[in-house]
Amino acid sequence: MANALQQLKAYQKKVIRLSEVSAILDWDQLTYMPAGAAADRADQQTTLQMLIHNLAVDPEVGRLLEASAAEVVGQPEGSEDAALVRVSKRDYDRSTRVPSNLIEELVSHSSMAYEVWVKARKQSDFSIFAPVLRKTVELNKRLADCLGYEEHPYDALLSQHEPGMTASKLRQLFAELRPALVKLVAEIAAAPQVDSSFLRGDFAVDRQQELTLEAVGILGYDTNRGRQDKTVHPFCTSFSRNDVRITTRYDEHMLGGALYASLHEAGHAMYEQGLPGHLELTALCRAASSGVHESQSRLWENMVGRSRQFCAYFLPRLVHYFPETFNNISAEELYRAVNRVEPSLIRVEADEVTYNLHIILRFELEIAMLEGRLDIDDLPDAWDAAMHEMLGVIPPSDTEGCLQDVHWSSGFGGFPAYTLGNLIAAQLWNSIRHDLPNLGSAIESGNCAPLLTWLRDHVHSLGARLDPMDLVQHSTGEVLDSKYLISYLHEKYRDIYGL
Amino acid sequence: MANALQQLKAYQKKVIRLSEVSAILDWDQLTYMPAGAAADRADQQTTLQMLIHNLAVDPEVGRLLEASAAEVVGQPEGSEDAALVRVSKRDYDRSTRVPSNLIEELVSHSSMAYEVWVKARKQSDFSIFAPVLRKTVELNKRLADCLGYEEHPYDALLSQHEPGMTASKLRQLFAELRPALVKLVAEIAAAPQVDSSFLRGDFAVDRQQELTLEAVGILGYDTNRGRQDKTVHPFCTSFSRNDVRITTRYDEHMLGGALYASLHEAGHAMYEQGLPGHLELTALCRAASSGVHESQSRLWENMVGRSRQFCAYFLPRLVHYFPETFNNISAEELYRAVNRVEPSLIRVEADEVTYNLHIILRFELEIAMLEGRLDIDDLPDAWDAAMHEMLGVIPPSDTEGCLQDVHWSSGFGGFPAYTLGNLIAAQLWNSIRHDLPNLGSAIESGNCAPLLTWLRDHVHSLGARLDPMDLVQHSTGEVLDSKYLISYLHEKYRDIYGL
Repeated sequence: MANALQQLKAYQKKVIRLSEVSAILDWDQLTYMPAGAAADRADQQTTLQMLIHNLAVDPEVGRLLEASAAEVVGQPEGSEDAALVRVSKRDYDRSTRVPSNLIEELVSHSSMAYEVWVKARKQSDFSIFAPVLRKTVELNKRLADCLGYEEHPYDALLSQHEPGMTASKLRQLFAELRPALVKLVAEIAAAPQVDSSFLRGDFAVDRQQELTLEAVGILGYDTNRGRQDKTVHPFCTSFSRNDVRITTRYDEHMLGGALYASLHEAGHAMYEQGLPGHLELTALCRAASSGVHESQSRLWENMVGRSRQFCAYFLPRLVHYFPETFNNISAEELYRAVNRVEPSLIRVEADEVTYNLHIILRFELEIAMLEGRLDIDDLPDAWDAAMHEMLGVIPPSDTEGCLQDVHWSSGFGGFPAYTLGNLIAAQLWNSIRHDLPNLGSAIESGNCAPLLTWLRDHVHSLGARLDPMDLVQHSTGEVLDSKYLISYLHEKYRDIYGL
Repeated sequence: MANALQQLKAYQKKVIRLSEVSAILDWDQLTYMPAGAAADRADQQTTLQMLIHNLAVDPEVGRLLEASAAEVVGQPEGSEDAALVRVSKRDYDRSTRVPSNLIEELVSHSSMAYEVWVKARKQSDFSIFAPVLRKTVELNKRLADCLGYEEHPYDALLSQHEPGMTASKLRQLFAELRPALVKLVAEIAAAPQVDSSFLRGDFAVDRQQELTLEAVGILGYDTNRGRQDKTVHPFCTSFSRNDVRITTRYDEHMLGGALYASLHEAGHAMYEQGLPGHLELTALCRAASSGVHESQSRLWENMVGRSRQFCAYFLPRLVHYFPETFNNISAEELYRAVNRVEPSLIRVEADEVTYNLHIILRFELEIAMLEGRLDIDDLPDAWDAAMHEMLGVIPPSDTEGCLQDVHWSSGFGGFPAYTLGNLIAAQLWNSIRHDLPNLGSAIESGNCAPLLTWLRDHVHSLGARLDPMDLVQHSTGEVLDSKYLISYLHEKYRDIYGL
């Protein structure tokens, strides 16, 4: 007879395999599924999801968890078995604490809210979306109550993405970051702008496809265990560590979008491909959190892909694919162009410096709405005021303002992961530069292997054994601190803009 | 409280949805899955298949079936509810009669046997495959005993593909067909051969892709509920009647392969797309049998795609895509070329006339092996003798002889469906020409809608309500008879070859 932990693992394997299957269905839906199949696909997913949910909340799991906990008593906190029981217990609690009628209400609200959001956005009329957003807030409060929290309801919502993270910790991190960024943005705005005009032009999509595939190969994305396809929005999805796929979108008049989206998604994908093989099909063989996931995509996209060294290495490849555009461009010109900073209205198009201000704005507004300090009807004004204060721009319409993101159709607490990702990436990068003093010249010769190895050792292979903040401390020797991102941005952009 | 039949339907819906999911996984594996994912995909499939199997053999289904049978007592045999109970009961019996250890043995034998077959074929050495084939025979005998039969163990194996079909009925059908075909083949061999040399040359794959997609559109394949992709072997798969996908393969030096494979798969696909919507997600919303399925693919491929009228309509499109090849070709030359008959060694490359002799040969050998009249070691000699007798050719090696098909790695009873498909297609075609006297001129102007409507009404929309032989009688007013295929082939090929 297998012990409880072995039984738990066998059970988990089944649930994880079915979740992988569900991810395959999603991928197909977004890549190749014919339009007429939409309703059937939704029902196939519902059938599968119900099955997965029922398996996940089965009281047998609760019993196995209790018995497993007893079996690992005395093992050190960091041991794999102890971590597995801890993480699995948290998953189980999260799944069982929320009553199924609330889950159903959230799911049906979110699909209805999505439709309303599309309409409101199209008409650029927030008042259409307001009642739906009010309901989102109410449902998220109820969800927070079910999930449980110590200090703030936002903590419960955050915990879905970032185990251990709290609103107060975020406030602390952002308290330093916000003014530093606002100041840097203003300084850059006053300096002469860099030229990035050559990144616009005619770029045949099939050549872009070859180019981006080559680029992600240079980083170390393993296409024997993955592939790249074309979708409306770029994403990364994993059906096991041996099948991690990325997608990108191509604009035939702009090269940067597809290239950097590809590097970004490849960063996510290499994390998934590097998860611990010996823990496969357990709750530990996954990313530590959304923020840590984002740290990997941002590190490869920005610290590597937007570095002087990568630009120098990659320029000849750009010349190869698009000679007319790049024949007369220097590596330095390319480097400056891909790092152009400009306050803008749309988060997903924002540069490395302004991006985090878009996130801080959303975090502050979410908190205010959740606390009831901000009436839903006043959101557009609050949005515009914050944009003006932080970035000096004001959206001409709600579409380019508070209606730009889909996130509030479903829930709160997801945005901070983006900035946590940038903070973590910068702190990891600081350690990496210390540990790998020759990394710059390696990248300049197209060799990213030392970096990938470092990330495998310090991040990927840990899976979800450590909570995100513990992982950061473990990998960098320090608690997460905004100063690393601030000094990284200062150093880089004061140089580029001659400040 | 829902009655038993309603409960049965709800249960069936879940099992069918999960089977659709399994088909999606298969499709992905054969189209886009990266090589490194193979082992994980196998395990994902196993997890899903076990789940489906456990649901299908759940004793609760047996109880619901019994109660449902009582509820439909008194309804006419042909009523939908009565048919649903009958077909579901047959599925359940088939699933529950075979003990799970035999299923496991069959599955593991078949994957091992496949590997051995690949090796034996590569070395063209039947003696490597012989012990495996001996085991296939033994396992299939045991399978037949579990499934049950009245006259012949082959009937049990056949019933998996063709409900109601028996070895003795096949013998009857083939008794007329075989000599007629042998005679026709000999007559054609003595006549001057037609020229098809222009179908070989240089045909860019991307143009072939456009051309085949256009061709299947002309037939009536709905790409809003389907799509075409590239694979090593062409196939059709369905994830619901609103998502029926086909694949084809392209040979840049030969045009006929991809074109006719596409028409063939589109024939399968239009059957699936035309299954009865109001019976969706029940055991009746599927093809009546493999043979009926094949009748649809063969009808569109041969009776339509290889007709004078289709050739006349499609030639300008061929000129459009490949002007150098087709500018100086007449419709009659095209018609003759795509209907070239030539005794050959390989079944999958055989023409309309010789094809069925390949099947009859396999049927006779399967029966002989199952009855123990043919020792496995003597198979190559028996094969070569039959090939010589029927087609006048002798394989130079086992690879081009008895090792050419993968089928005997797993089981017997699958081959007859191919010839049943041709027989059914010819008999349907006879009725269609009677019911639609102007079909020829419609096809000549690219209008296949009347034909598709006829097939929807007489075949597709019936789903599995009728067993295959009942369906043929229902749709054509007569029991299945070889004479229709024989006279179709006589008429067509005596004309082409001037006999």
